[in-house]
Amino acid sequence: MDNIQFYIKEHKSRFINELIELLKIPSISADPTYKNEVLKTASAIEESLKKAGCDKVEICETEGYPIVYGEKIIDDKLPTVLVYGHYDVQPADPINLWHSPPFDPIIKKTETHPEGAIFARGACDDKGQMYMHVKALEFMTTSNQLPCNVKFMIEGEEEVGSRNLGVFVKNNREKLKNDVILISDTGMIANTTPSITTGLRGLSYVEVEVTGPNRDLHSGLYGGAVANPINILTKMIASLHDEHNRITIPGFYDKVETLSKEERAEMAKAPFNLENYKNALDIEAVYGEAGYSTNERNSIRPTLDVNGIWGGYTGEGAKTVIASKAYAKISMRLVPNQDWEEISDQFKTHFENSAPHGVKVKVTPHHGGQGYVTPMDSVGYKAASKAYEATFGKTPIPQRSGGSIPIVALFEKELNSKTILMGFGLDSDAIHSPNEHFGVFNFLKGIETIPYFYKYFVELSK
Amino acid sequence: MDNIQFYIKEHKSRFINELIELLKIPSISADPTYKNEVLKTASAIEESLKKAGCDKVEICETEGYPIVYGEKIIDDKLPTVLVYGHYDVQPADPINLWHSPPFDPIIKKTETHPEGAIFARGACDDKGQMYMHVKALEFMTTSNQLPCNVKFMIEGEEEVGSRNLGVFVKNNREKLKNDVILISDTGMIANTTPSITTGLRGLSYVEVEVTGPNRDLHSGLYGGAVANPINILTKMIASLHDEHNRITIPGFYDKVETLSKEERAEMAKAPFNLENYKNALDIEAVYGEAGYSTNERNSIRPTLDVNGIWGGYTGEGAKTVIASKAYAKISMRLVPNQDWEEISDQFKTHFENSAPHGVKVKVTPHHGGQGYVTPMDSVGYKAASKAYEATFGKTPIPQRSGGSIPIVALFEKELNSKTILMGFGLDSDAIHSPNEHFGVFNFLKGIETIPYFYKYFVELSK
Repeated sequence: MDNIQFYIKEHKSRFINELIELLKIPSISADPTYKNEVLKTASAIEESLKKAGCDKVEICETEGYPIVYGEKIIDDKLPTVLVYGHYDVQPADPINLWHSPPFDPIIKKTETHPEGAIFARGACDDKGQMYMHVKALEFMTTSNQLPCNVKFMIEGEEEVGSRNLGVFVKNNREKLKNDVILISDTGMIANTTPSITTGLRGLSYVEVEVTGPNRDLHSGLYGGAVANPINILTKMIASLHDEHNRITIPGFYDKVETLSKEERAEMAKAPFNLENYKNALDIEAVYGEAGYSTNERNSIRPTLDVNGIWGGYTGEGAKTVIASKAYAKISMRLVPNQDWEEISDQFKTHFENSAPHGVKVKVTPHHGGQGYVTPMDSVGYKAASKAYEATFGKTPIPQRSGGSIPIVALFEKELNSKTILMGFGLDSDAIHSPNEHFGVFNFLKGIETIPYFYKYFVELSK
Repeated sequence: MDNIQFYIKEHKSRFINELIELLKIPSISADPTYKNEVLKTASAIEESLKKAGCDKVEICETEGYPIVYGEKIIDDKLPTVLVYGHYDVQPADPINLWHSPPFDPIIKKTETHPEGAIFARGACDDKGQMYMHVKALEFMTTSNQLPCNVKFMIEGEEEVGSRNLGVFVKNNREKLKNDVILISDTGMIANTTPSITTGLRGLSYVEVEVTGPNRDLHSGLYGGAVANPINILTKMIASLHDEHNRITIPGFYDKVETLSKEERAEMAKAPFNLENYKNALDIEAVYGEAGYSTNERNSIRPTLDVNGIWGGYTGEGAKTVIASKAYAKISMRLVPNQDWEEISDQFKTHFENSAPHGVKVKVTPHHGGQGYVTPMDSVGYKAASKAYEATFGKTPIPQRSGGSIPIVALFEKELNSKTILMGFGLDSDAIHSPNEHFGVFNFLKGIETIPYFYKYFVELSK
């Protein structure tokens, strides 16, 4: 890759400013209030792909937010890389915990990012990481070094479960035909320790509603005599874990992949310092399934977490009320072989059956997806590994992630190709949290590394 | 009481309109946003007491909202009745469940109230019931039938635990000197079944906060590896009741008054239809402490209810987050002999100790108060009973209430006099709930009954 470092140095400020403009648009797909902003972001992506050198760019309508598709086909006989990313972002709340407005990006230096990091919702997840691919393409087209065909598929509903992407993929198998899928929507261990994500967890996300009396009641007059939906909900949620922090849903662990002692020993070699981990989170102790290490708990083991709970009076002061309804949002991270639809069904059946008389329970599955494992002997993995070596000077460590990109399993099924997860974010980048950020180093290193992937992928495919 | 029925018939529309004007002011003491409205309500009460014939009316400042004091002293040698009530109201949320705006009162007929009921926040609790006393005084002064001295003490912080009333009472023992305290802030069994509340439960209201990691985390990357404050909070709350729905806080039941078989048999005679009760609330089954009936559970037994819970993402759609903090508001209703401060301490100690490593727990007591029992052989009780007989044609049934008016125990301690709870509301009036209302029949019947209490109290005191 001739001149890539020089090109980045030359255009660095423009790259960052373009990303900042993109981050200013609050493309929150979960909240209908932001509909116009999400659509505006799709148009901005369309424009940027054209400028980067795509021959054909389309805004593809779906039943939800559109998918931006772009391509540059240089030779039908050459391999094709399909880049997937998303232009929507997580909601920004709790907004009061942001040190600067989430959609007014600023660059600040941090201990982890001495060269500065861009603070904004979506900086890392996924606008910043997705935009690295746009700028890498710009370099390759501008310098005439694009070694193969490239296709972009950038969606706007990843944060709400990619509701319409599946249909789009099924209906456009020919258009999306490719030899490898490239995604930057994960992280790496550290800026000096590159890693490639080789496994993703699946996801089942449900919302539950517990209804007691048909109206809010005075807790003095009715307290102790009727089932209080909040008390019942806490009891039902608490019973989802046993004393070893194992999930109690019948059948939940039936298909969980069991790793061998050797595999676990191999995993345990990844650099990890428990004290640093606890200090970074300001917690006295870690917590989780008995018999597993922290790194195992958040990668090879399935989990169940409440993501939100609400009911009754939550304002200032005191209100002596028994609420009519209580709610929770609950998600389960799944490991390979667990089927998310089966798990959602198991949850629904178990949760509904665990309700006492006196309340009604409704379980609404939100969305989900299967887990995924990238084979390390695939051409794509090897190409990615060599690309990191070229720019970081180190062989990246293969790593299972606790996160989920539900659509990856579907890609393999429908498009019959492997996905390579080249993530450049760090765990400390606070994605999904207040003060999300993305290191300037990481952004630029991503732009530098991606063209090498193209180069090696074409070479190794021969 | 000459001409009371005639007087009410004559002035009925005016009485209702005056109450409606009072109900239009959103005097929500729990929410600082409404400060000016609360103060405006105090002035309106001051004005109404002057018009009703009080000789001296004062707005007494406190560290919180003021107490409106009024008196008409006709003869130092005659007995003195002290009327207590409150002009503040509960918050109106959930606002979307109101069929008409909470502070835009309307009169509608209902099955229980064929003569119409006034729908508004505070209609029954306590503006409507408090205003009956103002109008009863108006009748007695206008018709020259006031048989004794009367004092009014109307506060604006009852719904937030009467924070400053205790200090006021302690500092004004001479001014507040009385022979009996009269309160209408409870209910009766039915419009055809008058009853007098002879017992109130005590109250301990606390807020709890569980803190896990120092920021919201991505549930994929951290799920299963750190203590999730919401999951932990549900576990901690769930563990506050055992499988018999008994409260597990050590020492909680130590001082609970045990009723004899005979007393429980007497209580069981009160009219109660379980099917109607369940149908009215649209529940399939009642729920509560094993070994007790519904009426016992909500009167002679202590309880623990979550009044509000919140944490994490509660907006539309899905957010895969582990919240840094989770909160709940929890209240305990206490029975005679349980000391609310001791119980609050027991709760705090137990709750804090039940937290696992990996989270921090903070318990903040909000407010509380002792339970109370009115002796049925007191002059006040007898006078009230005769008053109901005079206007309803039936002897009222003595009844223990599940609710709390924490200040009643303090009145006895500081002012050394008994409190008589002449409530005219109904359980179905939805106090503290959306669509609170107060029957026009009940409002007028209260105004009619109160002067008889004065008459009999003076006669029986001789």
